[in-house]
Amino acid sequence: MSTQDTPFTLAGVTFQSRLIIGTGKYPSFDIMKRCHEASGAEMVTVAVRRLDLKAQGEASLMNWIDTQRMRLLPNTALCYTAEDAVRTCRLAEELGMSKWVKLEVLGDEKTLYPDVEETLKAARILVKEGFTVLPYTTDDPISARKLADVGCAAVMPLAAPIGSGLGIRNPHNIRLIRELVKIPVIVDAGVGTASDAAIAMELGVDAVLMNTAIAGAKDPVRMAVAMRKAVEAGRDAFLAGRIPRKAYASASSPLEGLVE
Amino acid sequence: MSTQDTPFTLAGVTFQSRLIIGTGKYPSFDIMKRCHEASGAEMVTVAVRRLDLKAQGEASLMNWIDTQRMRLLPNTALCYTAEDAVRTCRLAEELGMSKWVKLEVLGDEKTLYPDVEETLKAARILVKEGFTVLPYTTDDPISARKLADVGCAAVMPLAAPIGSGLGIRNPHNIRLIRELVKIPVIVDAGVGTASDAAIAMELGVDAVLMNTAIAGAKDPVRMAVAMRKAVEAGRDAFLAGRIPRKAYASASSPLEGLVE
Amino acid sequence: MSTQDTPFTLAGVTFQSRLIIGTGKYPSFDIMKRCHEASGAEMVTVAVRRLDLKAQGEASLMNWIDTQRMRLLPNTALCYTAEDAVRTCRLAEELGMSKWVKLEVLGDEKTLYPDVEETLKAARILVKEGFTVLPYTTDDPISARKLADVGCAAVMPLAAPIGSGLGIRNPHNIRLIRELVKIPVIVDAGVGTASDAAIAMELGVDAVLMNTAIAGAKDPVRMAVAMRKAVEAGRDAFLAGRIPRKAYASASSPLEGLVE
Amino acid sequence: MSTQDTPFTLAGVTFQSRLIIGTGKYPSFDIMKRCHEASGAEMVTVAVRRLDLKAQGEASLMNWIDTQRMRLLPNTALCYTAEDAVRTCRLAEELGMSKWVKLEVLGDEKTLYPDVEETLKAARILVKEGFTVLPYTTDDPISARKLADVGCAAVMPLAAPIGSGLGIRNPHNIRLIRELVKIPVIVDAGVGTASDAAIAMELGVDAVLMNTAIAGAKDPVRMAVAMRKAVEAGRDAFLAGRIPRKAYASASSPLEGLVE
Repeated sequence: MSTQDTPFTLAGVTFQSRLIIGTGKYPSFDIMKRCHEASGAEMVTVAVRRLDLKAQGEASLMNWIDTQRMRLLPNTALCYTAEDAVRTCRLAEELGMSKWVKLEVLGDEKTLYPDVEETLKAARILVKEGFTVLPYTTDDPISARKLADVGCAAVMPLAAPIGSGLGIRNPHNIRLIRELVKIPVIVDAGVGTASDAAIAMELGVDAVLMNTAIAGAKDPVRMAVAMRKAVEAGRDAFLAGRIPRKAYASASSPLEGLVE
Repeated sequence: MSTQDTPFTLAGVTFQSRLIIGTGKYPSFDIMKRCHEASGAEMVTVAVRRLDLKAQGEASLMNWIDTQRMRLLPNTALCYTAEDAVRTCRLAEELGMSKWVKLEVLGDEKTLYPDVEETLKAARILVKEGFTVLPYTTDDPISARKLADVGCAAVMPLAAPIGSGLGIRNPHNIRLIRELVKIPVIVDAGVGTASDAAIAMELGVDAVLMNTAIAGAKDPVRMAVAMRKAVEAGRDAFLAGRIPRKAYASASSPLEGLVE
Repeated sequence: MSTQDTPFTLAGVTFQSRLIIGTGKYPSFDIMKRCHEASGAEMVTVAVRRLDLKAQGEASLMNWIDTQRMRLLPNTALCYTAEDAVRTCRLAEELGMSKWVKLEVLGDEKTLYPDVEETLKAARILVKEGFTVLPYTTDDPISARKLADVGCAAVMPLAAPIGSGLGIRNPHNIRLIRELVKIPVIVDAGVGTASDAAIAMELGVDAVLMNTAIAGAKDPVRMAVAMRKAVEAGRDAFLAGRIPRKAYASASSPLEGLVE
Repeated sequence: MSTQDTPFTLAGVTFQSRLIIGTGKYPSFDIMKRCHEASGAEMVTVAVRRLDLKAQGEASLMNWIDTQRMRLLPNTALCYTAEDAVRTCRLAEELGMSKWVKLEVLGDEKTLYPDVEETLKAARILVKEGFTVLPYTTDDPISARKLADVGCAAVMPLAAPIGSGLGIRNPHNIRLIRELVKIPVIVDAGVGTASDAAIAMELGVDAVLMNTAIAGAKDPVRMAVAMRKAVEAGRDAFLAGRIPRKAYASASSPLEGLVE
């Protein structure tokens, strides 16, 4: 059986790369730029509230982003209420960044977990205002389905807390989300190393978004390369159809279903 | 920090690829050949006892192996005693296959687990006879160290039973083996999908050997591509130095050490 | 060091047993009654909407519950909106069952996952009406904290989907909930066998609620005994303070923190 | 279905308790004695080579062991060759301790992993000399089967390295051992907390042997109680027949087989 991939399409736009990356925590803007290139990513997210709007030239983050090759995705990091997040999205639009937004409404400064109730509230407003909303959410399948019902363009469940590097804590939930919603599913936050990204893709999600795993590695550029290959490997393995799990090769019944 | 990889060297021979593949269970010789190409592997293992020595032309397995690009590694599959395995290695040499051998002495037809005691016995004989011995073994660190002490060129602990697709059952043991022996460590058997191969490489082993995961996939050629990328991704991630695991980004103490 | 346990107190009432059980899916009312006794539980939950109010004598579920020994906890199973759940709680009160309620607002008939947004809405109303609210929720720490802030008497995060028997899918989240809220935490749903209950208690939660794991076992009465012992064992182990995890005994650094 | 347990019988002797304990690493002999009582164990293992044969009265370990209630099981800790282990067993017999021996032939001072090859060698000799041999071994099913074939009275595979507290690293292997041998299987080494003991018993093994998990806990006596209950809980759950694992209750196919 020979398989063919369908393109990754988000709100009508098609991407070759299924890796989405960030702009925070890099040792320098220069290393960030090299990581962006090495990753092959075509979308990059930027925290609107962390932007230094007065910075010019090399001091400005925006100067180091290749917007020819990568689509800008402003995000609402540092927002803790629906109101704040909505205001931040409007600001991003006014700044001419994009009408696509990564919606983050955080519940807690310590864990950076999303506040699902406020996220739903903000999503309802933003969708009505014509934004293309990509919400960061927990791995709860019902919240994900409600975000889809509200009109979001994708759902972005976390693998684990932001910056934790814990990998896919609950693959069952990610798989249930993949079953329950018709829109793209992008695993966002918690990836720590290449195999985590591969596992996410093997679960059938459409893309993976990460920042710390690359920016915080000892050699960020090499990790960006690793992540590019891992996302592709995971996607290929998903499409290729893996062998069943068995206690041993001659066992009659497969041990299906669990990703550990 | 910019990192550089050291080449994978085995008994004085250097390989670009850290993926080693097999020749069994493919839907056809033609698909096998295409998988070999897609995998980028430079070493391929062949079961001496399964060879049909009378087969000619397209009916002969050997006809479909590109020995220009790939080193042949005869193996002793189907041997259940040291004596049988030694005899099989001598036969491989007589057939002009190679003096490198993948030593398998199985303990059980059902699980295909190795018999460590017989493997050690065979290894002692074969090393004395000048073979380059690459033994398939359990993930027991002490057996691995003893095989190294005996003069094997590498140790090849299993990730899980042959053909099981269960992935790395006990990463602690693989890591301990990596610590205890100075020779190359090659994870052999049990890999089921791309992330398994990446995890193996992230543990710091030198290479991964697999057969069923590719041959038995629904689309073997695509899986061969996935495995090539996954092995590279895992190696790159190992070299790049992953971020520590933490309960959440602002947690003060990392959750180090466990691969689950 | 000799340790002493503090009693498990919920809304001012003290319980000796940290196991809470249900009334559904038993092979017969008689077996249910024997399981209740064997479990040592002092609180039992009953689905108000499944009650056959016309049933008399042995045909009536209520006839088989020892309310002398066990506190009744009506629940809102089968409710899919805040409104329905609130109405069901009021009905339970009118029937003289209890002013304590296990609040379930489900998001989905297939997975029986809670709808967190609707659960929060219902909890706000019920707390205002003077109910002692024990809400079934996801393992999302922020939702749990919000339910606590709203005035619930405890939070009851799921281990895994109702009836799944998958055990604690995400121990990190359960531990984070234990850190973030001051009220009792009761693991509800998903326990499959004795070790799952022990693991829950070892994470430091106050109690475990289960139904299918006992009712659906091949020998429900023996499983009820197993669960009683497992909950006690897990509590004792939590209080006793386990040894640190290490790669091996002489390793200098512990592998702390991960429950796998 | 009502189930009944069969007694745990070892070399013709029947035990009520399925927990076997040790004598090392306790804060004091007094605490050790209280832990022995609290554990309910009926067999206790003693390192022959650590015995201070000149110690008298309260200074002597043997003075603190209740041999009325508990069977003594001398062990060969600190032995690194078959020869040493055999000699130590003969010494134990001469000292009048027992003809039952826990055979340990270690491969490494750092990890305390067994040397399977030397263990087999020693077992063959000891069985011929009429000892009742209970060998500590890896979780390799083939080595376990060979130890059974040699005439050992039980096999005692490790859960994880001695003193590591890592729990059952490879439940598949423990289950395979349980399938492959007819003699009792006792999980020995690696248990860290109560749930680990429960998981071992749920896999169907006959008993669990532990030392550090109790001796090294902050409150050893309470941990001894926890372990007694956990072993019973795990056994009861095994006999009771757990519910199948499913992605959610209404899922049609179970996710059988994997203990994670």
